[in-house]
Amino acid sequence: MYNIALRIAYHGAAYSGFQVQPDQDTIQKRLEDAIYRLTGERTEIIGSGRTDTGVHARWQVVNFFTKQRIPEDRWPHALNTVLPKDISVLSAARVPENFHSRKGVTKKTYRYFIETGRCRNVFGMDFASYHPLPLRVEQMHAAAQYLVGTHDFTSFCSTKSEKTSHVRTIYEIECTDTSAHMDVSPHNARLQITISGNGFLYNMVRIIVGTLIQVGEGKREPHEIAEILKAKDRRKAGPTAPSSGLILWEIEYGGLRLFT
Amino acid sequence: MYNIALRIAYHGAAYSGFQVQPDQDTIQKRLEDAIYRLTGERTEIIGSGRTDTGVHARWQVVNFFTKQRIPEDRWPHALNTVLPKDISVLSAARVPENFHSRKGVTKKTYRYFIETGRCRNVFGMDFASYHPLPLRVEQMHAAAQYLVGTHDFTSFCSTKSEKTSHVRTIYEIECTDTSAHMDVSPHNARLQITISGNGFLYNMVRIIVGTLIQVGEGKREPHEIAEILKAKDRRKAGPTAPSSGLILWEIEYGGLRLFT
Repeated sequence: MYNIALRIAYHGAAYSGFQVQPDQDTIQKRLEDAIYRLTGERTEIIGSGRTDTGVHARWQVVNFFTKQRIPEDRWPHALNTVLPKDISVLSAARVPENFHSRKGVTKKTYRYFIETGRCRNVFGMDFASYHPLPLRVEQMHAAAQYLVGTHDFTSFCSTKSEKTSHVRTIYEIECTDTSAHMDVSPHNARLQITISGNGFLYNMVRIIVGTLIQVGEGKREPHEIAEILKAKDRRKAGPTAPSSGLILWEIEYGGLRLFT
Repeated sequence: MYNIALRIAYHGAAYSGFQVQPDQDTIQKRLEDAIYRLTGERTEIIGSGRTDTGVHARWQVVNFFTKQRIPEDRWPHALNTVLPKDISVLSAARVPENFHSRKGVTKKTYRYFIETGRCRNVFGMDFASYHPLPLRVEQMHAAAQYLVGTHDFTSFCSTKSEKTSHVRTIYEIECTDTSAHMDVSPHNARLQITISGNGFLYNMVRIIVGTLIQVGEGKREPHEIAEILKAKDRRKAGPTAPSSGLILWEIEYGGLRLFT
């Protein structure tokens, strides 16, 4: 058996998240179906994360076991010919038998895109969420810094979470205005929020973003984030931001370079 | 009567260009219908340019005459409520009676977006054209410089043109790689070609782009552009690039600031 790792991208709007669920169209199901169509083998795709319904991925990593002797550089094109247009295999590599795309993760990075502006933007990105009023990006960035480090993130986690520990480490959060780079719609602004950490709880990134947006709107001040964290109470944080703006940006395996 | 100028944006994919034509859905028709629904007045929209089928606009300028005493800052929102989502009024201003949005133009700028890359980009811009192979952007830029200045652009003009003179002045052309600004799809590259001039012939921008792409592919060298210009023969230039990547970027009226 060969252990094959894939780097994949997908636009999540049409899917019920990554993981296989009964009667749902998911990324995992589509990948498993594509491998079956290609090889006749039923195999399980192991994913590096379980993105929610509607969430996108830029560089997700998955792996699977196969008997096929297909050269590693042939997998992307072969799979892309049988995958839908909104799922793309970017790279493939044969990896050691003990490589596990979820268990080996040391760092995950998500990025959230927000577009603001009074007028409709006819060139809107279809992977951004929309907010009509301007946001105070510096205050959002200042607020986000209270979250960096190792904390109990119960306040920023769905009450549906089944994890026993809500302690996670956030390495970095950056909120920036990127409007200048792409001035197709000069009346609007574009913000991005990049968050990296050792792992994220159910809805954690979206609740962090929803709370930072409240800071951006002036409804909260940056220092309040410390109090929200301390409360360990989901009700103290802001709403869960829409999934449409969230992209799983990158997965890292302690410096291991999987793909050339 | 009031002379009202509008700055508008539109995503052109669904329309047969700007200008009213029998039995065709056009931007001009949609704007005239919107004004009729709002005011009951049938009025003619005068456009600063006649974009082709599928071409987009970021800052097109139009004007029209109305009896309505609607304050100028109310027009954008009022029109947007009755316009389709892919047409947006960004600004409005009352202008002098003799202002004509086409006749007064001193400079027009177009921008063309190209995305290159072997893999499908699931986050592709829906206002870019796609080219699978990488393009030599420096050579494209060098080639473009032969077009700057006042020339007879017969070689870069559709044979359907009905203009008596094909002499036009190009002020500036810039070809740049903008991949770094927006690395959603790091396996792909994004190029933009910005062209400004005093006016453009039928399909002129798209034929210039199609020819520059041939330079980018290595099928032509930059200096050949001078020979193509000299030939005054449409067959010497490259193909007409797809309309999907072309955006009417900006219209200028000799330093006149129409909108605050």
